Amino acid sequence: MSSSPLYAAIDLGSNSFHMLVVCEVAGALRTVVKVKRKVRLAAGLDADFRLSRAAMERGWDCLRLFAEQLQDIPPENIRVVGTATLRLASNVDDFLREAERVLKHNIEIISGEEEAKTIYEGVSWTSAGEGNRLVIDIGGASTELVIGEQNEAKLLSSLHMGCVTWLNNHFGDGELSAERFQQAISAAKSVLAKVAADYLALGWKSCVGASGTVQALQEIMLAQGKSEQVTLPKLRELMQQAIACGRLDRLQLEGLNAERLTVFPSGLAILIALFEELGIESMTLAGGALREGLIYGLLGNSHDCDARDRTANSLINRYQLDREHAERVRDTVVEAFGQVQAGWRLSRRYGRPILRYAALLHEIGLCIEYKKAPQHAAYIIDNIDMPGFTPAQKKLLSALLLNQRDDFRLDPLERQGAVTGQQAIQLVRLLRLSIILCMRRTRGTVPNFTFHAEGESLTLTVPKGWLDVHYLRASELRLEVERQQKMGWPTRLQERDQE
Amino acid sequence: MSSSPLYAAIDLGSNSFHMLVVCEVAGALRTVVKVKRKVRLAAGLDADFRLSRAAMERGWDCLRLFAEQLQDIPPENIRVVGTATLRLASNVDDFLREAERVLKHNIEIISGEEEAKTIYEGVSWTSAGEGNRLVIDIGGASTELVIGEQNEAKLLSSLHMGCVTWLNNHFGDGELSAERFQQAISAAKSVLAKVAADYLALGWKSCVGASGTVQALQEIMLAQGKSEQVTLPKLRELMQQAIACGRLDRLQLEGLNAERLTVFPSGLAILIALFEELGIESMTLAGGALREGLIYGLLGNSHDCDARDRTANSLINRYQLDREHAERVRDTVVEAFGQVQAGWRLSRRYGRPILRYAALLHEIGLCIEYKKAPQHAAYIIDNIDMPGFTPAQKKLLSALLLNQRDDFRLDPLERQGAVTGQQAIQLVRLLRLSIILCMRRTRGTVPNFTFHAEGESLTLTVPKGWLDVHYLRASELRLEVERQQKMGWPTRLQERDQE
Repeated sequence: MSSSPLYAAIDLGSNSFHMLVVCEVAGALRTVVKVKRKVRLAAGLDADFRLSRAAMERGWDCLRLFAEQLQDIPPENIRVVGTATLRLASNVDDFLREAERVLKHNIEIISGEEEAKTIYEGVSWTSAGEGNRLVIDIGGASTELVIGEQNEAKLLSSLHMGCVTWLNNHFGDGELSAERFQQAISAAKSVLAKVAADYLALGWKSCVGASGTVQALQEIMLAQGKSEQVTLPKLRELMQQAIACGRLDRLQLEGLNAERLTVFPSGLAILIALFEELGIESMTLAGGALREGLIYGLLGNSHDCDARDRTANSLINRYQLDREHAERVRDTVVEAFGQVQAGWRLSRRYGRPILRYAALLHEIGLCIEYKKAPQHAAYIIDNIDMPGFTPAQKKLLSALLLNQRDDFRLDPLERQGAVTGQQAIQLVRLLRLSIILCMRRTRGTVPNFTFHAEGESLTLTVPKGWLDVHYLRASELRLEVERQQKMGWPTRLQERDQE
Repeated sequence: MSSSPLYAAIDLGSNSFHMLVVCEVAGALRTVVKVKRKVRLAAGLDADFRLSRAAMERGWDCLRLFAEQLQDIPPENIRVVGTATLRLASNVDDFLREAERVLKHNIEIISGEEEAKTIYEGVSWTSAGEGNRLVIDIGGASTELVIGEQNEAKLLSSLHMGCVTWLNNHFGDGELSAERFQQAISAAKSVLAKVAADYLALGWKSCVGASGTVQALQEIMLAQGKSEQVTLPKLRELMQQAIACGRLDRLQLEGLNAERLTVFPSGLAILIALFEELGIESMTLAGGALREGLIYGLLGNSHDCDARDRTANSLINRYQLDREHAERVRDTVVEAFGQVQAGWRLSRRYGRPILRYAALLHEIGLCIEYKKAPQHAAYIIDNIDMPGFTPAQKKLLSALLLNQRDDFRLDPLERQGAVTGQQAIQLVRLLRLSIILCMRRTRGTVPNFTFHAEGESLTLTVPKGWLDVHYLRASELRLEVERQQKMGWPTRLQERDQE
C-alpha cells in the first residue's frame, strides 16, 4: 500500500501546543504522530493582556517544530487554531504575523463558543453516551462547558478561567495551603455562578471531562489502584494530599507526571468548584476533544449514521473479516435473541445491540491466530478506540468475544457493567450456539431453528431429522449443550416433532 | 469482503482424525475451523492386521462430521490422507469404500516416506531454522524421522512404532511400572537401531517435534512453570512421576490434558528412546506438521522466496501498514547498521535481519491504537504465527518493537536469546533514532547521516546546518539522545564540520 494522505490538527493552547497527525486507513483514522510541547503561553500574559516577547518566542520555537512536519501535508488537510490566550492577547497580531510565517499556514483564532462546539464534536465522535451529556474541558486560560445530546450541542459556554491563569492568580508564590485552595475554589465558583443555573435547568445523565487535568486524575487513580471514575470525595482527598506537601515545588502525588505538576493544583481547584457548584456526581475521561473535533471537521464526515455501525464496519475492513459470514452469524443471533427475549426479559436497548456487534466482530481475534483467538479478540477490543461505544459496552463486547467458545470465563461477564451478569451469560449462551449453527460458513446452510427460554433453561429446536444428517454441527451442538449443562445452565437440543 | 475460498486438509491418523479448514487472507493462511476426534483406529488392528468393524465404525462416524463441512469446499481445495494404520490394515478397502461414500471425496493412503516428506514441508513452512534440522513426529502407529535443511528433506524414515501400538504392546493392562517403561523403551530402541547410524552420520543443529506427545509435553512444562525446551532429564522426571501413579487409570500430571492421558506414557517411552539412542540434547515444538504440509501443497506455493520475507510481506498487507514508510525506515536502519557494525561487532547473521524486520513492522501496533502501540506490537508478535522465524527471533523482534519509543523496557531485550542483551540494546538504539530520522513520512526527507560507534558510545552526525532548519526532528532527536544518556549509554548528536 502506498502512503495514505495525512491530516493534521494543531491547537495553540494556553498551556501547551499540540500537533496531531492522522491518516485514514479503511475508513478509520490511524494516529501516526503526536507532538506536544509545554509553551505556557498564558503565563506570558500581563495585567494589560499583552503577551510577553518571551512567551511569543516559546510559541514560535514550537511552531518551527510543527512546521517541519506540516510541509509534507496538503494545506487543505491542515487546521491550526488558537484559543483563550490568543483570544485575550491585545498584541495577538504581533504573534500571528511571525507564527504564520514560521508555520507557512494560516492560524485561526476561534471564539470560545466555536472552541466549545468543536470540543463537543470531538467528544461525541470518540465517546458515545445516551441522553444529555455534560462535557467539561479545563484549558490553560479558559474552561469550556457544554451540554449536548448525541451529536448536537445544546448549551455552550467558554469561561475565563483556566489552570494557568488560576496558577498565576492563586498559587503564584508556590504556597499550597487550605486557604489558597479555598480562594481558588471560591474564585472559580464566582465565574461559574453566571451560567450554573442554565446548566442545572437542562440537566445531564453523564459527565465527561477532557484536557490535561482530567487525564492527570485518571493516571493518579490508576497508579493508586482506584477506579477511574472521578468523584468529589476523591478530588478532596487529593487536595488534602497536595496541602500536606505545603509547597508547589515539593508537590508529589503517586501517579502524577512531573510534566503536569505545576498546573495540577489550580486545575484541581477549578474541578472541585465545578463538582460542588453543579452537583456533579462522577466524571469519566473523554476519548478525544478539540483536536479530534478539528480532524473530523476536516474529513467532512457527517454524523448521519450510527457511530457504532461506522466503528464496526471499519473494524471489519481493517481486520479483513469475512463479512458475509459475520453477517450470517449476526442474523442468526438476532433471530435467537428475538425468540427468547420475552422468556429471559432481555434488554432490547442494552443487550441486543452489543450481542449484534459481538456476532459481527466475533472473528476479529483470528487476525492474530486461531488457538487463542477469543483472548486476542478481547485484547483488541480492550485496547482499541471504539467511537460510539461506552466503556461498559466495550467491556460487555470484550467479555462476549472472550467467551465465544471453549471454557467459560465468568469474571468478565459478571463485571462489565452494561447489563446484569445473568443477562451477559444468557447472551453468550445464544452467541455460542449461533456460531455453531453457522459453522459451515455457507449461504443457505443455517437450519430453521427455534430457541425457547424458560427460567434459566434454554431449548434449541431444529427441524425433524436434521440432527441425523448434519453430523458435524449435531456433534458440536451436543458438546456445547454439555458445556452449558456443566455450568449449571439447563440446556437442551431437540428436533421438532413434525415439520 | 465476500467469503474467501476455503481449503481443507484431513488426516486419518492412527490415534485421531483431524480436519483443518483455512482461508487465504492477503496472502496468509487464516485457520477458521479445527475439528479433532479421537478415533483410536490403531487400537482396532488385530495381530493379522485386520481392522475391526468397531474401529471402522468409529472412523466412519467421524467422517460423517467432516463431510458436513467439506460439502461447501471446492473438491480441488481438499486433500484427505490416511496414514500408518490404514497402510497396515489388510482389509483397508472395506474401510475406504464406505469412507469415501460418506465423505464424498477420495482418500489417499500415503506411504510412510510421503508422510515424512509432507510433515517436513509443514514444519519447514511454519518454523524456520538454520542448518540441518531433525524433525520427529510420533503418530499413533508410526513415527516419522526426517533430517532436512531449509526446504529440502535429506533423510526420511517412517518407523513402525507409535503411541497407540506401544500402548497396546507395553501398557495394555494399565500397569505403569519401571519395568514396563524399560520394556517399551527397549522395544523402541530396537526399532531405531536400524536407522540411527544414518541420522547420526548426517547430524543436525536443532531438533523439532510435532504430534500430540510433544504438544502434551509443552503443556506440562508450561503448567509446571518450566522452560518449553524438552530435555532428557525432564522426560525422565515425568516418567518417574508416571511410575509413582502406578496405573494408567490413576495417572495425573499437572498440565496433562485428560484427552491425552491414555497415550502419554507410551509416547513418552518412545521419546526417551529417541533422545537416548540419537543423543538429542533438546527439542522444541513445531508450528505445524502433516496437515499444514498438505495445505501448503494444495495452495501450490513454492518455497522459492525466504519464508521470513513472505511472512513480513503478508503482515504488512494484513495489518495495512504504510509500506512506503516502513521501507524507508528499513533502508535507514540498515544503513545505520552498516555504519556501526564493525565498531559494535554486530552480528550480520542474527542481528541484522531481525532489525530489518523490526523496521518494516514497527507500526504494526497502530492497528490497535496509538498510545500503547509499542505494547500492542509486542503482543501481536508474541501471539501470531510467523512462519520462518524461530522462537528466539520472534522474541527479539517483539522486544525491539516494544522498545521503539518512550521509556526503555530492558527485560525483554535481555531475555530474547537471539543475540546478546548488549547487542539487542545497540540494535534498539539504532532503530529509535532511525524512526525519528524518518518521521516526516515523506520521500527525500531523510538527511545524509552517519552513525559512529566506539565502545558503548554512539554518535549521529547530520549535515552542517541541518539541525537549525529541521526543528521537529532536531528536537525529537535531542530528547532521544537524552533518554539514551539517562540509561548510561553515551550518545551524541552533532553536525558535520563541513559538507
